[in-house]
Amino acid sequence: MPSDIGVVGLGVMGRNIALNIADHAFRVAVYNHTAARTRAFMRDVEPQHSFCDCYSYADLCAELAHPRIVLMMVTAGPVVDEVIGALLPHLEPGDVLIDGGNSFYQDTERRYAELKEKGIRFLGMGVSGGEEGARHGPSLMPGGDPEAWPLVRRIFQSIAARAEDGEPCCRWVGEGGAGHYVKMVHNGIEYGDMQLIAEAWQLLDQGLGLPEARVADTFDEWNRGVLSSYLIEITARILRVRDPDGALRVRHILDAAGQKGTGRWTAIDALQLGVPLTLIAEAVYARALSARHAERQRAAARLAGPEGGAPPGDPEPWIGDIHDALYAAKIISYAQGFMQMREAAREYGWNLAFGDIALLWRAGCIIRSRFLEDIKAAYARAPELENLLLDPFFGDAVAQAQGGWRRSVGLATGLGVPVPALSSALAFYDGYRSAVLPASLLQAQRDYFGAHTYRRTDRPEGVFHTHWTGDAREEAQ
Amino acid sequence: MPSDIGVVGLGVMGRNIALNIADHAFRVAVYNHTAARTRAFMRDVEPQHSFCDCYSYADLCAELAHPRIVLMMVTAGPVVDEVIGALLPHLEPGDVLIDGGNSFYQDTERRYAELKEKGIRFLGMGVSGGEEGARHGPSLMPGGDPEAWPLVRRIFQSIAARAEDGEPCCRWVGEGGAGHYVKMVHNGIEYGDMQLIAEAWQLLDQGLGLPEARVADTFDEWNRGVLSSYLIEITARILRVRDPDGALRVRHILDAAGQKGTGRWTAIDALQLGVPLTLIAEAVYARALSARHAERQRAAARLAGPEGGAPPGDPEPWIGDIHDALYAAKIISYAQGFMQMREAAREYGWNLAFGDIALLWRAGCIIRSRFLEDIKAAYARAPELENLLLDPFFGDAVAQAQGGWRRSVGLATGLGVPVPALSSALAFYDGYRSAVLPASLLQAQRDYFGAHTYRRTDRPEGVFHTHWTGDAREEAQ
Repeated sequence: MPSDIGVVGLGVMGRNIALNIADHAFRVAVYNHTAARTRAFMRDVEPQHSFCDCYSYADLCAELAHPRIVLMMVTAGPVVDEVIGALLPHLEPGDVLIDGGNSFYQDTERRYAELKEKGIRFLGMGVSGGEEGARHGPSLMPGGDPEAWPLVRRIFQSIAARAEDGEPCCRWVGEGGAGHYVKMVHNGIEYGDMQLIAEAWQLLDQGLGLPEARVADTFDEWNRGVLSSYLIEITARILRVRDPDGALRVRHILDAAGQKGTGRWTAIDALQLGVPLTLIAEAVYARALSARHAERQRAAARLAGPEGGAPPGDPEPWIGDIHDALYAAKIISYAQGFMQMREAAREYGWNLAFGDIALLWRAGCIIRSRFLEDIKAAYARAPELENLLLDPFFGDAVAQAQGGWRRSVGLATGLGVPVPALSSALAFYDGYRSAVLPASLLQAQRDYFGAHTYRRTDRPEGVFHTHWTGDAREEAQ
Repeated sequence: MPSDIGVVGLGVMGRNIALNIADHAFRVAVYNHTAARTRAFMRDVEPQHSFCDCYSYADLCAELAHPRIVLMMVTAGPVVDEVIGALLPHLEPGDVLIDGGNSFYQDTERRYAELKEKGIRFLGMGVSGGEEGARHGPSLMPGGDPEAWPLVRRIFQSIAARAEDGEPCCRWVGEGGAGHYVKMVHNGIEYGDMQLIAEAWQLLDQGLGLPEARVADTFDEWNRGVLSSYLIEITARILRVRDPDGALRVRHILDAAGQKGTGRWTAIDALQLGVPLTLIAEAVYARALSARHAERQRAAARLAGPEGGAPPGDPEPWIGDIHDALYAAKIISYAQGFMQMREAAREYGWNLAFGDIALLWRAGCIIRSRFLEDIKAAYARAPELENLLLDPFFGDAVAQAQGGWRRSVGLATGLGVPVPALSSALAFYDGYRSAVLPASLLQAQRDYFGAHTYRRTDRPEGVFHTHWTGDAREEAQ
């Protein structure tokens, strides 16, 4: 019997996704460039699984039903191009090749175009949910050649996570690099969510000085409301784990955050598109600042904080305020992320269904949350919604949360607790809802020193220049 | 008589810099790819100037003394490569070729390496100060081939702006693309300075509701103190210019900021280097947000601001607070910019003299200010200074300004005035001086969902993983 799909690469992710596919009664041919890993994999598989172990690309491709479906689970970067090159002699026009790694979307765009010329149907698929997700139900974001989607849909919708309503977290995202793009934005949003939770924790812990158990309870409470999400849930658990010395383990963990680069890609892409993705950028920069651990110790010894930074009296009302700050800032973060995807769709010519994207993040992935149901609902109400903040539900939610949000940022500002994401989100909100911004002064300055010209609010057409250093007369240019 | 230097490109910048060089009694050969522009240029020059008009690259190169010195003043991008290609057949090993455009530093690095192979000494030189600066004294940031510097030094130090102490604003910056890199950071800092002034203006104007004349007077007062700078000076002037209808002209200027991309490059480069350049990034994003003018009008109609956002009673004490906020945030912006140059020097192998860089920005360019003398002094005290904030002068200055800074951000937060740069700078300051950041929770989360491992504060070596979902035991990895 020919196999339904081939999996190249048996690292943790490849191995788990291969097992997941086999769980769903598909026949899977597997290949790894070191044969020992393939043999080890075969020793561990369960008897009910139907695997075919292959030791060359020729073997692998010979074992597959036609048109062939090959899923690469290899390290993003040049390795993907090497594997494609090695597979190509054994593939035929019409075959489907899928990159399930964390590839940069521009690489996917390039590979899609190159393979299209050869008749190979290429997909770039974002896979979220880590090892556990890969094994038991990831969130899958497939994009690339639309002709390939009907051929692989059954497999991937079978293995994907399912939301509470039973819908699989796997939908067609769009052409070319759209799948990997949406995965990139997902990762950026993950950076933002994590940073917001870290700031809320610091406000509860250092700002209010709450007992540790009360802090963990607070995250549990929050997990039963509008903030209900995987990241809030695991935060509550983490904040109960103790070291043998009795201290919270998190107190012993070095506060220097690592990053693998996808959050950075998101912020860079936003800069290139001209989208104000401030919250995620602040989250990326906050990780960079945290990583300067030794320098911070020297700075802490030298630089003064505010005077009279005593915690406020009764902490209870502040807990609600911090909740509201976290909720409002999270809405801003997603509004910015969807703003970026909207701009990318326009720039790169993708037809992204934003409601579907919210759907496929509801389960299986790190940012899964109840919140995403509300986003789905917003796009169901208005598929062409310009911005999440212009949806009545989210507009009202931010308006109601803003009192606590503003008080929380004010508290942090007074106490000297750094809240880059919470405060950046607030500045964005206040800028976004400003009919008039002081950018008019910027335009005047640019015209003053560089004769860059400006437009006028009272004339729809034309650009103007003022002779600022002379008689201040204005000329149409 | 052979000419001392050839200038290719007679646009506004090339024309003005050619005239400036001729003012200093150098003989200048000029070439433009459309002969009409060269002829028009020659019709306008003064009799005391010694120009030689050329109508081919061969002519131009034949007119020059050896080794030849050719300054390209052409549009950054592919045009530079085209001109280099056209010039090369007429140059000899040892000749000096200079790119005085706003080139991206990585292009300069590439061109430097390519031309070094051919024996051509290449310089990439940042030129700041706009048309006026080019004509009467720019700030010049030359980098590239160190062997070329002694050959061109006399010309460029003659034409550069001079600081009050008579020093020319032109010093050797470093190898390869270092000159254009430093120019890029200069432009990013310019974005930051402008955004900070815009936020201060909005706080004085909308936040405090000061009379317009009082606002302009305030900028004049500030221009006599620590904030004394070209941008503050022109802001005061701009805020006095009135339209025929009696309103300030700036009220009629469309609040949608343009950008040519160099601020964006700076923020992207910081993300790539892992430097927390938050203030400039916020300034770039703020321009992007301002440019969404039509969308903001729709948002303004829908999204509520804070309740009870009445201006505070007596505005006078607040004016001092806003001054201090602007000063402190400006220190943060420069600290971040110099942090980035320090990291870039390490990453790209440049030997940057930070005090010299401060010196060459003191006059001629848009960010010229008294402030840069203080930066020069800080690097004179400690050439290896890790961060401007660790200099006693700047550390004390921020500490003294922080009360007003915090009150200003609190005021803006309460009133709903967006201050992305002022508040981002404060979050950076509070993060930078934090011996412990909540990034420990991020690391725990990453270890929880992705087994990314973490380091411990109490053990210098080793990485660890906790079985978070099981018995919470910790294992060394």
